[in-house]
Amino acid sequence: MLTAEIIAIGSELLATDRTDTNSLWLTEKLNSIGIEVRLKTIVGDDDARLEEAIKDAIKRSKVVITTGGLGPTEDDVTRKVAARALGRRLWLDEQLLEEIRARFQAFGVPMPERNSRQAMVIDGAQVLPNPNGSAPGLFIEHEGTAISLLPGPPREMRPMFENHVQPKLVGRAGNLRVRRRLLRVAGFGESALDEQIAPIYTQFDNPQTTILFNNTEIEIHLKAQARTEQEAEKLLDDLSARLEERLGNAIFSFRGESMEEVVGLKLTVGGYTLGVAESCTGGLVAQRLTDISGASRYFIEGVVVYSNEAKTRALGIEPMLLRKYGAVSAEVAESMAEGIMKRAGTDFGISVTGIAGPDGGTEEKPVGLVYIALADEAHTEHRRLMLPGDRQLVRWRASQAVLDLLRRRLI
Amino acid sequence: MLTAEIIAIGSELLATDRTDTNSLWLTEKLNSIGIEVRLKTIVGDDDARLEEAIKDAIKRSKVVITTGGLGPTEDDVTRKVAARALGRRLWLDEQLLEEIRARFQAFGVPMPERNSRQAMVIDGAQVLPNPNGSAPGLFIEHEGTAISLLPGPPREMRPMFENHVQPKLVGRAGNLRVRRRLLRVAGFGESALDEQIAPIYTQFDNPQTTILFNNTEIEIHLKAQARTEQEAEKLLDDLSARLEERLGNAIFSFRGESMEEVVGLKLTVGGYTLGVAESCTGGLVAQRLTDISGASRYFIEGVVVYSNEAKTRALGIEPMLLRKYGAVSAEVAESMAEGIMKRAGTDFGISVTGIAGPDGGTEEKPVGLVYIALADEAHTEHRRLMLPGDRQLVRWRASQAVLDLLRRRLI
Repeated sequence: MLTAEIIAIGSELLATDRTDTNSLWLTEKLNSIGIEVRLKTIVGDDDARLEEAIKDAIKRSKVVITTGGLGPTEDDVTRKVAARALGRRLWLDEQLLEEIRARFQAFGVPMPERNSRQAMVIDGAQVLPNPNGSAPGLFIEHEGTAISLLPGPPREMRPMFENHVQPKLVGRAGNLRVRRRLLRVAGFGESALDEQIAPIYTQFDNPQTTILFNNTEIEIHLKAQARTEQEAEKLLDDLSARLEERLGNAIFSFRGESMEEVVGLKLTVGGYTLGVAESCTGGLVAQRLTDISGASRYFIEGVVVYSNEAKTRALGIEPMLLRKYGAVSAEVAESMAEGIMKRAGTDFGISVTGIAGPDGGTEEKPVGLVYIALADEAHTEHRRLMLPGDRQLVRWRASQAVLDLLRRRLI
Repeated sequence: MLTAEIIAIGSELLATDRTDTNSLWLTEKLNSIGIEVRLKTIVGDDDARLEEAIKDAIKRSKVVITTGGLGPTEDDVTRKVAARALGRRLWLDEQLLEEIRARFQAFGVPMPERNSRQAMVIDGAQVLPNPNGSAPGLFIEHEGTAISLLPGPPREMRPMFENHVQPKLVGRAGNLRVRRRLLRVAGFGESALDEQIAPIYTQFDNPQTTILFNNTEIEIHLKAQARTEQEAEKLLDDLSARLEERLGNAIFSFRGESMEEVVGLKLTVGGYTLGVAESCTGGLVAQRLTDISGASRYFIEGVVVYSNEAKTRALGIEPMLLRKYGAVSAEVAESMAEGIMKRAGTDFGISVTGIAGPDGGTEEKPVGLVYIALADEAHTEHRRLMLPGDRQLVRWRASQAVLDLLRRRLI
């Protein structure tokens, strides 16, 4: 497969509050014509490092795209440094200079002298017109590599890529198309999951499989390439069917949907209603469920009860139960789920009670101990969980677990 | 100034939907100890390119930090490739292996065999402990360059950097110290804010001021440099005092604290208790408040009531009120705040009712219309808001507004 590198140029991209997002858009465009992005570099207005980055990129990759650094100021070093990296001269393109001058005149202002620098062209390069700004792009064929120097602002870069670069690249991409898919998994550790499915996915180079432990849940990323999008989709279908065979309904999402979307859809389809009683998750379960538009169809009522008194008052939990087993117990979790189901008059009730930390743990009931429960008219069940992580993570994992418990009941 | 490079490792970072955000946090930390980030590389599970990236980085920069690729799977190539790039052996650290094994045992599961790979150590490297995950980090001194291999998940990477890498780097940085401060503002638009404070901050080159409209709230970033941290802090103190003079209590946070932290602290200090009644925010207000450890001191009870029936049942809202004014109205918002205050027996009750969208809007009550209310024993007040943005943003802004209403009452 043809490989590409993207170099984003500009000191502002090395600050603490800005990431390079041009490359996301470019990656999607390149993938769609069968070109894979293998490396991205972000470099400031640092001549030496930029020169090295360009030299390295053209050694390794057949497609190199830079964004940024084509403006009229001293900081805009891309043209100059790229010429040096390629060992080519820069010359002043008089015709281009006239076009830039005319552009300013059309807005009724004289061209500032510094903009003449934008008419400097690398020897052998094609000029890429920029109807949306003053910085023209450049396209250079160099020892079998296609190098495109594009402006940084997305509204200038995107049309320039689509109209002038993409058509040049389509031909050389071969005919491969790339499609991706994201599967999400609940109820597995990363290693345990990998042990289950490595024997399957390692048989395939295509689709490529990446397993990602995304802080809070496990994602399986699949990437397939084929002559047509249909063939690529077929490869994804086949592998994901084999993964499903192994993992069963631990895979809760085949197209990247979130747990709350999946649960919401199942509740909607079944015409079911739900009540939620939370202690340690503090409203997170309700908030996730109601993040989905249309949640009012199934979400009837939630309560967040921290104290024992509130548990008794809001959910009718017997004070005796709280004294005997404690608020963090299977008995109280089940009673909470039944309590909210009865009170809200819903088909299902779910509950969470636990110790999210960092304080409040004891030897017998340490931080991370969580009970979740699910009630319907016929019966009530609970799970005991020991969740690792800090407060936010324990809360998130507990919310995920109780939503997953409901999801599995709804299958 | 000492220069650093950051290498983010993982194929998922070359997809179309994910950027490397670890480097933003790392840049801030490095800047604060006088180290400048000059280049960032993002590379997939591509051994050859990663090896070259590491080799190039250690030639150019005195500080090199990699994130990611330390997990237990086949894809996690950082240890192996870094060893090759440095020309050093990898060996199995038996003691580290025991520690990893013990970590799994503490959670009651046997260590999967493949995790033993995480006990492989580069010759001459120091092991950096990871209390938040199974992947230890590595720190290597190599020909005058400090190389740190850190895990990808921010929860693991951040404490490892702060506790084990930063102390090692502090000594080698030059004499300029950079300190940053983050002020958060509620109740202003971006341009209106800038009009207020531009006459102040434009007088200063140091501290540098950046105003960031962070989708959901306005942040004022200040960056000062000086010989000592004390001097830099003094510069920050002076400017933020002048900004406060102008903006008054619209600045709710001077050290980057979140709204829920600020409100939680004020409730704790005053010994007050709180009940929360939510409709369109669906538990988000409760969840934000209870994200703070120790919230049980002030957070007594929350309810999430979507339907009119639930509002009447759980909060005692008169059906007549709902019929006459509708669920999204000042009258119902106030009645919800009073209802939860009475029911939970708290000092304050707050409430939110509105139309978060995308559906459910009408000409009279469009998407984005939200009423918030605050009740205490003495009186009840409400605000009518028209909030722009999508569902998530309307919900978040509504939660922010009601927390801010309470914060201002508590001043």
